[in-house]
Amino acid sequence: MSFSWLVDPIRDISSMHGKRAIARQQRLTKPPGSLGRLETVVVELAALQGRVDPVVERVRIVVFAADHGVAGAGVSAYPQAVTVEMIRNFSRGGAAISVLAREIDAPLEVVDVGALRDPGSLPGVISRRAGSGTADFRVAPAMSGEALELALIAGAEAIHRAGDAGCELFIGGEMGIGNTTAATALACALLNELDPTRLTGPGTGLDRLGVARKAAVIAEALAHHRSALTDPLEILRRLGGFEIAALVGACIAAGQCGIPVLVDGFIVSVAALVAVRLRPEVRPWLLFAHESAEPGHRRVLAALHADPLLHLEMRLGEASGAAIAVPLLRLACALHRQMATFAEAGISGGGGDEEGGGGGEG
Amino acid sequence: MSFSWLVDPIRDISSMHGKRAIARQQRLTKPPGSLGRLETVVVELAALQGRVDPVVERVRIVVFAADHGVAGAGVSAYPQAVTVEMIRNFSRGGAAISVLAREIDAPLEVVDVGALRDPGSLPGVISRRAGSGTADFRVAPAMSGEALELALIAGAEAIHRAGDAGCELFIGGEMGIGNTTAATALACALLNELDPTRLTGPGTGLDRLGVARKAAVIAEALAHHRSALTDPLEILRRLGGFEIAALVGACIAAGQCGIPVLVDGFIVSVAALVAVRLRPEVRPWLLFAHESAEPGHRRVLAALHADPLLHLEMRLGEASGAAIAVPLLRLACALHRQMATFAEAGISGGGGDEEGGGGGEG
Repeated sequence: MSFSWLVDPIRDISSMHGKRAIARQQRLTKPPGSLGRLETVVVELAALQGRVDPVVERVRIVVFAADHGVAGAGVSAYPQAVTVEMIRNFSRGGAAISVLAREIDAPLEVVDVGALRDPGSLPGVISRRAGSGTADFRVAPAMSGEALELALIAGAEAIHRAGDAGCELFIGGEMGIGNTTAATALACALLNELDPTRLTGPGTGLDRLGVARKAAVIAEALAHHRSALTDPLEILRRLGGFEIAALVGACIAAGQCGIPVLVDGFIVSVAALVAVRLRPEVRPWLLFAHESAEPGHRRVLAALHADPLLHLEMRLGEASGAAIAVPLLRLACALHRQMATFAEAGISGGGGDEEGGGGGEG
Repeated sequence: MSFSWLVDPIRDISSMHGKRAIARQQRLTKPPGSLGRLETVVVELAALQGRVDPVVERVRIVVFAADHGVAGAGVSAYPQAVTVEMIRNFSRGGAAISVLAREIDAPLEVVDVGALRDPGSLPGVISRRAGSGTADFRVAPAMSGEALELALIAGAEAIHRAGDAGCELFIGGEMGIGNTTAATALACALLNELDPTRLTGPGTGLDRLGVARKAAVIAEALAHHRSALTDPLEILRRLGGFEIAALVGACIAAGQCGIPVLVDGFIVSVAALVAVRLRPEVRPWLLFAHESAEPGHRRVLAALHADPLLHLEMRLGEASGAAIAVPLLRLACALHRQMATFAEAGISGGGGDEEGGGGGEG
């Protein structure tokens, strides 16, 4: 095992199919541009899927779960035991993402990348444990190089399974008590933010005092590792988590396999940022679903030049914000495929079929 | 016929069911509030539908179409003939709203409230013509009192048909070349905005010069009618359109019948504002789907104290922005109904089941 696969080539996207999709949008019976983000996202999908009429029927959701050594430092509103309890809840179908996956007809896979305790064999849960929770990153690297390799590969394997299943859109999610702390520390290191209070938020629901404590914990970790925070992989090893590393691996493998990724909230976006710092060519393969209520998300999105589709003040994780956006992508594809053109409908355009024109808010 | 039905009582909403829905949200396996707007909207729906587990399966979409005398003044990127051509496109299933209605499994009804020419009998199109387009409001009231009555009632009848069909959520849309001009004039009059350039936008896609011309046309109309712009109904008669009046009637009748309305973009929001000025008790019955790219929308939404769910830079009309939001409402309801509670899932809460707690962005 090694990190060598990380440098395997990333697929090019098909700008030709993107341009043909733009041309089709111009001919549909609506004022050009009037479907807003539904037009731009379908053009992006066309370029990624290499087809003028993109589809997002076969969506696959994989939630990576793991525990964090720093959780003992009072950085979450919930005890660490909740990570394993939530893995069971995913398996039984009672969690938010369980409901959403059923409703949008997407298979849900849960990967235990290293919860504190092994939950044992559970339906729908795959075991790829890189450890039993990370180390407390205030005093040690979160994980060893070997554990980092395992976690990255766990993410890549999820992409390979998705590819085998003909997946048209991949959604990665995360669960892990303490993981906004790890993600915020990563974001600070990647964005050279020396003041963690600027990026630290309430996570699951800390009060003002709790947020201040969390920011102090992050500052402590950043100070401890400062001299070693050089390259993205080492930053990930020292400050990340198993589920975050798996998401990094998934983003890179998705680019290598040519599978578009719909990025969820703050934590997945931080993983995406690590992936893009490692392999900038991955960036076009990432679509962004929503802006989380977690305050650091905006800064991470800005660094990724990402403008998410939804702004619903969600902050649950579990891939829930991305799952919510799937019906919008499907409707965007349906409009693109099924709407009549000006010529087909015999509608007076603003200058012929090529330039388009049409009805709507007149 | 008369306006007397407009003052019939508006139904009360059930704050008791809203409170019970909030209590259920607190017990579900997620940090309280972490589903953001998906939580608040399901609580609103619970209060409107008078049930703890609201449903939005039976959605009905009605697009009101009509023409505008002012369309001759160069205020649209498209010729007036497009209104009737789009009615045919709706009927044949080629328009954006046709596609969306099919995809979200909602019946689509088109009501011709007064296109310039009678399109004749078309499948899915109901004729309730209040005239053959409105008069040019630069020089005369857009419509007579009798035509206004007819148009308002056309909207109310659509609600009554929806109620008979067991509709759980009503969506009104509009089509009419020139109707952002009418809607902007109405907004200026209702908001006491003396400078129409502050609210005037490109509609279907006017360039800068076109927008300036449109603002000048609106200023001319406001000046012509100034002394008569006293009450909302007279403002609607002088500056509105048949489809806008129908939407006003629909909003008021929806409140009277207790049917929640999902408001579309700029034009429907202006109609909603007229309805709320006439009957403030209607306001709670209105949910707001999206913020349009049309610049006046923000001001109208602010006047309605409305914070729409989506911000997708859409500006098509036809109810398309509201249709796009339907899957989100359905997912919000599914989460509310199907998620496990902390007690059911045996998950460690932050202080017992009542106070809740749970997984997510930890």
